[in-house]
Amino acid sequence: MRLTVAHTGQGSAMECVTPQGARIAFDEADAGTTGSPVQHLLASIGACALMDVETILRKKRLAFSDLRVECVAQRPDEGNPKPLQSVRLVFHVRGDVPQKAMDDAVRLSVERYCSVGETVRNGAPIAYEARIEGSA
Amino acid sequence: MRLTVAHTGQGSAMECVTPQGARIAFDEADAGTTGSPVQHLLASIGACALMDVETILRKKRLAFSDLRVECVAQRPDEGNPKPLQSVRLVFHVRGDVPQKAMDDAVRLSVERYCSVGETVRNGAPIAYEARIEGSA
Repeated sequence: MRLTVAHTGQGSAMECVTPQGARIAFDEADAGTTGSPVQHLLASIGACALMDVETILRKKRLAFSDLRVECVAQRPDEGNPKPLQSVRLVFHVRGDVPQKAMDDAVRLSVERYCSVGETVRNGAPIAYEARIEGSA
Repeated sequence: MRLTVAHTGQGSAMECVTPQGARIAFDEADAGTTGSPVQHLLASIGACALMDVETILRKKRLAFSDLRVECVAQRPDEGNPKPLQSVRLVFHVRGDVPQKAMDDAVRLSVERYCSVGETVRNGAPIAYEARIEGSA
């Protein structure tokens, strides 16, 4: 897998165009336009796991909506670097989804399928839980 | 640090809005519109390191342009998950930049400052080099 990230020449703004033509942009978090590299890192952990959860629930023909994951990372308060030290993923879904089905989907996703999680877990252990809210 | 990633309801498309209001979007790589989670992961490693290199070169008052980093990751060919197993970052810059200054900037960035690299290096070791091309 190969990607190039280039400085745009504007402040700290960086961008990557994928081989498929998608643009991924980065800047300082405070710029508020693109997300910082660490925000992309944490969001990619959640998105990777959420894609697999979505696929598993769909294959089980469960009716669901409002599927999302809160990603909470511990980082050092001071100094540099400020790596993610641990990550907690709290999955939420609305619908007639049995708790066991959701627990199984989340566990399979995080522990077996997620390529991003598998890359980072040696540096930042990943904990997770699943919560079901009302009907779809 | 806390972020929420939500399923958009459209296929595998996911999105995150940061506390600063930036939107980070994900989909399968083949969708070609947003980048996949693993593409965001690899690009975030490069972007994080490149930001620090840019800052260091600027502080040294060096004239440069076309600053970029090629990010090459080894991954398993088959099976799931397909984590990044190792990463090679090849930094390029155009300008009157002494090789030693660029080497120092790249080494400091990757080894001392980059929060994303520090998070992933236990799972995926990061190698790096710097190349200088012509004048700015």
